Amino acid sequence: MTYRAPVADIAFALKHAAGLKAALTEGLYGDLDEATVDSVLEEAGKFASDVIAPLNAVGDKFGTPFKDGNVTTPPGWKAAYTAWAAAGWNGLASPADFGGQELPHAVNAACIEMWNAASMAFGIGPVLTMAAVDALHAYGSDHLKQTYLEKLISGEWMGTMQLTEPQAGSDVGALRTKAERAPDGSYRITGSKIFITYGEHDLTDNIIHFVLARLPDAPAGTKGISLFLVPKFMPDGSRNDVRAHSLEHKMGIHASPTCTMVYGDKGGATGWLIGEEHKGMLCMFTMMNRARLAVGLQGVAIADRALQQAWAYARDRKQMGKAIIDYPDVKRMLLTMRSLTGAARAISYATGVALDRSIRAKDPAAREKALARCSLLTPVAKAFSTDIGIEVASLGVQVHGGMGFIEETGAAQHYRDARIAAIYEGTNGIQAIDLVTRKVPLEGGNTVRLYMNELRDIVTAVQASNNPAFGETAARLNEAIDSLERATQWLLSQKTSETTLAGATPYLRLFGTAAGGCMLAEQALIALRENDDSASRTALARFFAENIAVQATGLERNVTEGAQSITDAEAALA
Amino acid sequence: MTYRAPVADIAFALKHAAGLKAALTEGLYGDLDEATVDSVLEEAGKFASDVIAPLNAVGDKFGTPFKDGNVTTPPGWKAAYTAWAAAGWNGLASPADFGGQELPHAVNAACIEMWNAASMAFGIGPVLTMAAVDALHAYGSDHLKQTYLEKLISGEWMGTMQLTEPQAGSDVGALRTKAERAPDGSYRITGSKIFITYGEHDLTDNIIHFVLARLPDAPAGTKGISLFLVPKFMPDGSRNDVRAHSLEHKMGIHASPTCTMVYGDKGGATGWLIGEEHKGMLCMFTMMNRARLAVGLQGVAIADRALQQAWAYARDRKQMGKAIIDYPDVKRMLLTMRSLTGAARAISYATGVALDRSIRAKDPAAREKALARCSLLTPVAKAFSTDIGIEVASLGVQVHGGMGFIEETGAAQHYRDARIAAIYEGTNGIQAIDLVTRKVPLEGGNTVRLYMNELRDIVTAVQASNNPAFGETAARLNEAIDSLERATQWLLSQKTSETTLAGATPYLRLFGTAAGGCMLAEQALIALRENDDSASRTALARFFAENIAVQATGLERNVTEGAQSITDAEAALA
Repeated sequence: MTYRAPVADIAFALKHAAGLKAALTEGLYGDLDEATVDSVLEEAGKFASDVIAPLNAVGDKFGTPFKDGNVTTPPGWKAAYTAWAAAGWNGLASPADFGGQELPHAVNAACIEMWNAASMAFGIGPVLTMAAVDALHAYGSDHLKQTYLEKLISGEWMGTMQLTEPQAGSDVGALRTKAERAPDGSYRITGSKIFITYGEHDLTDNIIHFVLARLPDAPAGTKGISLFLVPKFMPDGSRNDVRAHSLEHKMGIHASPTCTMVYGDKGGATGWLIGEEHKGMLCMFTMMNRARLAVGLQGVAIADRALQQAWAYARDRKQMGKAIIDYPDVKRMLLTMRSLTGAARAISYATGVALDRSIRAKDPAAREKALARCSLLTPVAKAFSTDIGIEVASLGVQVHGGMGFIEETGAAQHYRDARIAAIYEGTNGIQAIDLVTRKVPLEGGNTVRLYMNELRDIVTAVQASNNPAFGETAARLNEAIDSLERATQWLLSQKTSETTLAGATPYLRLFGTAAGGCMLAEQALIALRENDDSASRTALARFFAENIAVQATGLERNVTEGAQSITDAEAALA
Repeated sequence: MTYRAPVADIAFALKHAAGLKAALTEGLYGDLDEATVDSVLEEAGKFASDVIAPLNAVGDKFGTPFKDGNVTTPPGWKAAYTAWAAAGWNGLASPADFGGQELPHAVNAACIEMWNAASMAFGIGPVLTMAAVDALHAYGSDHLKQTYLEKLISGEWMGTMQLTEPQAGSDVGALRTKAERAPDGSYRITGSKIFITYGEHDLTDNIIHFVLARLPDAPAGTKGISLFLVPKFMPDGSRNDVRAHSLEHKMGIHASPTCTMVYGDKGGATGWLIGEEHKGMLCMFTMMNRARLAVGLQGVAIADRALQQAWAYARDRKQMGKAIIDYPDVKRMLLTMRSLTGAARAISYATGVALDRSIRAKDPAAREKALARCSLLTPVAKAFSTDIGIEVASLGVQVHGGMGFIEETGAAQHYRDARIAAIYEGTNGIQAIDLVTRKVPLEGGNTVRLYMNELRDIVTAVQASNNPAFGETAARLNEAIDSLERATQWLLSQKTSETTLAGATPYLRLFGTAAGGCMLAEQALIALRENDDSASRTALARFFAENIAVQATGLERNVTEGAQSITDAEAALA
């Protein structure tokens, strides 16, 4: 079973619940029209399905052999990457001044989902290049931009993001890689990095590393970190003093080379500062929303791929005279998979539209409001989507029965691949803490309150529709929003403490559950209005409301009542 | 990080909440005393930790190469297996008349947990031999018993269970392997089987296959299936006409050879009937409680191993100046892992004690009552434990951050290994359907009602203890039992239908949640009374009640209110 991009579903989710259509109508994207968006999605779907998807199993099996400092990507990967970049996909949302197409980030989000559903190991590489482009465009000197941006945007060269060191994972401030000022204005970088995705490979002729390092006179912690651009090959064609030392042997995304990088075997790699000295984290934060959204989309992607595979199997596989899709317990699994995937997709695309508004809205106040919305939703898009990615991939294995455990079937690869997305680009625990400590308190809580009011409006519209096909959708979603509101109020009324942090993860899940349920309901409302696959969308919204949104009260209690049992549990943690 | 069997915890769980101590006191096991049980567990713990556990990573890496019909087990495996069998572990609970030690199944359950925590791929082999012993002892002719039982009980030979064929997975009745009567009273078996665990290997000189097949004049479906004993080597030393054709390439338990078996290349393998013709399923059902409990114990086992590994990492790993175990979000993960593991262990051991009572109680009415209890709890022990095995192993990866995704760390292997236990020996969906359609209605619902009353008694005792360390334990557990009672009553009041089947999986989870929470609370009560690690046990029971048992209302609603949205969802399943 291979992947077919569900282009119609993706386009619907993007335009409606996520709000791209409204943004197009109000002119946020200039003269871009819906037909163009449709044809972009259509083409992306074809490329993902026809060219990338067949590489996924090959990549898993072949991996990325490493020899004498060189990485060999799996058969067919270089040709596919080259064709992908040549078709302009890498620069889809990148600035036009250096050759990008400057299409909506929201549309790019949908495409990122498709690349990653086709192959997570393929899709993660460009995500990092795009993040590098963002940093360079926002903070790079004109000279650096002239030298590197065009090729990074076209995809002729790829970029890497290098933060992690053995002692500095979630604690970025603990990093030790050194940068020293050279007389010519460049810097000499020495040290090493771990877990560097696509740190070395043969897809492109050059690789541009974006490296966090510390100057000799830097303050301690995150306030003493600077960002440097370090090319594998220097502008004169000579090799820079940076190399991949070894590759990790990972559970999944085998075709994505994860490297330990070494800087300064020969005295120091040459790098150039991006932004100001000691202000590297500022550059990182700019990119963070985008990179985190992209990883959330990996969660959506792997969920959708696992879903497609399980669906096809459940339709084919007969037991006791009927296809297993006709058994209620299998139906529950498939509907759980489908509704969670749809919910995560809707949240992620809405984050993409908010990101676009935060950049493109004419009114600075509107930009600021959109930035707050984007900042609020980003940790949810990242963590909720990647958590459900794992759950959906696990259900996908289960639907297959014994065949799910056999590698050749493919379901197992999704289960293995999915696991990393909850970890990298900030673990989901870090996302939850970010949501609770920084995002919920935005604008004194008004950002989140406004969002919850919008969710409530959707439910009111469901109620007003008086459509019996919704069953108890409105009642269950209202209860979920009640829970979210009470949990939010509780968080806002507390000082950040062990107690609030203990509830961060269930709070994020509660947020994603309430939001996702409402967005599925909104999609159903629009489908009813537009007579577009409405029976299916209504059934899905109802399933989510009656079977998944009902977890809300338990999650609320985890947040508001469960923490004391954690902070009091020293004896059970000894 | 290797595995150390938590012998004290295991002994406590076995004796107290599971009820082994009471059974010992009332003489269920003759003159067996607690000290003997303790020393058996102690020795098993040593063997599991010292001899088997170090093989686990080796087995994962080496797998079981297959060449010319022969399987090579990983380095060290044969020596370990031989020593394990020589120490008498294989026959621990087997009948004494053929050399077994006839110790309690409950004690064997604790040992099975330890073998499987040390290595799931190692532990699953003997589980199948033990099941084969059960079948042969209960239904075999004297001649077959004389020929095979002693060596199967000593472990000199291993046994296999062969049900599955490509078209016959959960639908055993669809199997096609043929058996034809031979003039000498034996049978000729032809056909093939898939997914046969330890179908071929080099651990023992002979392998005794227990094979389901169909006679030419057999009725259709499960009523036409007979059970045959088919040795790899015949009593005269000649090779029987059965061979492994190929091995599966699996996501986990790499060191457990999963074979496709072919019967009858040369006209038919020689087999002997066990039990009566066409009554093979009866023999299977006898073993099923035991084999399913054993797989449930694999869930407990892999959870405990993942927990130990994550715990050690969380204590060592420092971020921002302190060990990550000191961060509330990590605490939540570790407490979730620990309390789910403890809950599943308690349920599984209680099932083992019920199994013993169903065999050993003097009064036939007591045996029958115990059999009903054992039958009720078995699907919960199997499915709840293996579901949480997956969840705990996944949290174990998450606690490790990026290191969890690297194979060398070991956390990833647990995540891969854990996945199969929810599938084999009857998928967890099948378990849930068994619970809802056959077990809950036992004795007109009295079996489950009596059990729920016992749970309620535990909560009453928690309340009566007036111990503030319990927090809201009693209130939350009472609510969970309320939910379980209402959901049970709802099920009993319905005819089996699409609607009841749609709620089977959440009902089983609700059952396990209420039962597990109460059993942890009972352990805490006993610990308080006996002053045995009571602070830790109370904290754990409280965490479970306040953070996990609160999912009960959502699960109840899945059962009683969620089904209609599934049966009505045709459009979303098209």
